[in-house]
Amino acid sequence: MRDEDYMREAIRLARRGLGRTSPNPMVGAVIVRDGRVIGRGYHRRYGENHAEINAIQDARENVSGSTIYVNLEPCCHHGKTPPCLDAIIRHQFGRVVMGTHDPNRLVNGKSEAVLRQKGIEVRAGVLEEECRLLNEAYFKYITTGLPLVTLKFAQSLDGRIATAAGNSRWISSEKFRRLAHRWRAASDAVMVGIDTILADDPQLTVRLVRGKNPVRVILDSRLRIPLEAGVITGGEVAPTIIATTSRADAAKKSRLGEMGIEVLVVPESGGGEVDLKSLLGLLGGKGIASVLVEGGAGVITSFLRQGLADKMMVAIAPRIIGKGIEAVGELDIAEVSRSLRLSFNKVYRCGEDLVVEARLKPPAL
Amino acid sequence: MRDEDYMREAIRLARRGLGRTSPNPMVGAVIVRDGRVIGRGYHRRYGENHAEINAIQDARENVSGSTIYVNLEPCCHHGKTPPCLDAIIRHQFGRVVMGTHDPNRLVNGKSEAVLRQKGIEVRAGVLEEECRLLNEAYFKYITTGLPLVTLKFAQSLDGRIATAAGNSRWISSEKFRRLAHRWRAASDAVMVGIDTILADDPQLTVRLVRGKNPVRVILDSRLRIPLEAGVITGGEVAPTIIATTSRADAAKKSRLGEMGIEVLVVPESGGGEVDLKSLLGLLGGKGIASVLVEGGAGVITSFLRQGLADKMMVAIAPRIIGKGIEAVGELDIAEVSRSLRLSFNKVYRCGEDLVVEARLKPPAL
Repeated sequence: MRDEDYMREAIRLARRGLGRTSPNPMVGAVIVRDGRVIGRGYHRRYGENHAEINAIQDARENVSGSTIYVNLEPCCHHGKTPPCLDAIIRHQFGRVVMGTHDPNRLVNGKSEAVLRQKGIEVRAGVLEEECRLLNEAYFKYITTGLPLVTLKFAQSLDGRIATAAGNSRWISSEKFRRLAHRWRAASDAVMVGIDTILADDPQLTVRLVRGKNPVRVILDSRLRIPLEAGVITGGEVAPTIIATTSRADAAKKSRLGEMGIEVLVVPESGGGEVDLKSLLGLLGGKGIASVLVEGGAGVITSFLRQGLADKMMVAIAPRIIGKGIEAVGELDIAEVSRSLRLSFNKVYRCGEDLVVEARLKPPAL
Repeated sequence: MRDEDYMREAIRLARRGLGRTSPNPMVGAVIVRDGRVIGRGYHRRYGENHAEINAIQDARENVSGSTIYVNLEPCCHHGKTPPCLDAIIRHQFGRVVMGTHDPNRLVNGKSEAVLRQKGIEVRAGVLEEECRLLNEAYFKYITTGLPLVTLKFAQSLDGRIATAAGNSRWISSEKFRRLAHRWRAASDAVMVGIDTILADDPQLTVRLVRGKNPVRVILDSRLRIPLEAGVITGGEVAPTIIATTSRADAAKKSRLGEMGIEVLVVPESGGGEVDLKSLLGLLGGKGIASVLVEGGAGVITSFLRQGLADKMMVAIAPRIIGKGIEAVGELDIAEVSRSLRLSFNKVYRCGEDLVVEARLKPPAL
């Protein structure tokens, strides 16, 4: 077994914490001596032990002189728990193999330096790209304070998310809708515009798979939301935040507050809408490191226009709808050479549908 | 080696005739004795020897008692060449393994019956689906008299084939454009609407790969084509057919005729356009078994509205364009449940792009 194989195991373990560690990263750790795995651990939940500590506690023997594999550089700062670096030194590990450095400026390379100084062998950058992707939300969040923004929708092969009459049930297969619920469970927050609430009255909860419900964020600059909307009356299943502007009706605001709904007053954009960048900053301040934007078209278009989207998760269904509603509206792009560029990171089938996971590329200069 | 393995080899051989056998099918033949391949052949070109004959001529020894694998039932009728059935019987093959029956009503099971009657062992239906797909144009053409119609276009992930300003260069990668030229070379005809000629003045020839040029068919109900269009002045590289209606200007018609361009007068549809179904029948009458429809949006939409398309070949580029031009226009579909259904037969990457090869499903009753 090579370093890469043990790192793959660490990543696999890390993923078990999916949806429960945020805003902490997902981390897995594997302790190996003489080609034998003697301990495994992962960060199970925000506030609980880090992966390294769980792996040390799991070890059936003295770990002194062994190698620990961990997808992220061990922490050297006191957070909710004491620094893992101290435990690694105290237990006299002989070698530390890490996937990536921790972009957190409190750590970023410092732990590696201390380990080397203590005479512990270090190898960094093993399966670096995979380790970075595993925690892409954390990487963005910790370096910018903003959550990772993923735009999600299902369209026909001809690019329609609904018929001209507004009908969209169901473009995608049930299997994809289950996958989309898994994405919800893996996200800190899910976001839709008020038009989607008014049209579909969705719950925005995780029902088709097991998993925790994300925070529900509704963009509603004029506070038009009906008090009987599902995201309000079903308030106990998941927190709901309504992002509005100072123009919102004060009485309705306090009525919603009494119902346990958080009404977040956000600066206005030029157009009198909720300013999305400000909102993302406020959500980041609440520890929300990832947002799944589920529509509608207006919201998706706004994120793309303002360059605030990081990823797109698109289901393409084996259907042709013809003239109807598209996910992306006016971007004022007159030439193909000026279009927004993506990289198709993953493409796979899900039931009858095709799923494309893409990342927005930074705009060319 | 099993029957399936030899049949796969026959299919591989058959494909070498791609683009040159039409309206005949592509056929490959493999002769096997005691687990050794002793002869191989394929139908190289319309009018020349069939695969079985080439395989027999290729055999380095007496074929008596051996097995012949062929993706399509051997012919029993006199066409350009004598029936293969006679040769198989005369050479005393012991066993015939065929992929599919020949849907040609002159053959369809008759050869199999004769072989059995002559005491030759027959196995039919080996890799049947692959053998059918290999010759899907032939299967449609020989049973309906109409060519197989494939709609081809390249779009952004958000379903745009051009910006609102009409710019479309280049949505797809160069690698995909080469693939599209391979599709042209494999088609008997390529078709575009007059608007595409007026906007882009394409050559519609095979340039980026090696292969024969298809017949060029231009839909031009009012004969608006400029005499200096590339498909007219470049008339010597490939035949050009202009499909028009009786309203076309007679002088221009004869002028085009003098230039060696065939002007085909087709019945009008209700809207005064070239009636597509009539046109397909006329093209079929000329031995054209496959048509690659390359746009524009109006033409693609008409084929879909009238249920005349069999397949779609769509490149999806890693770009977002926003409001622009979509490949498919008004189909009067108000509910998703009434949308046209596809099956995604093949999905693969081509350079940066994703390619989806789909088949239209027959409409639900």
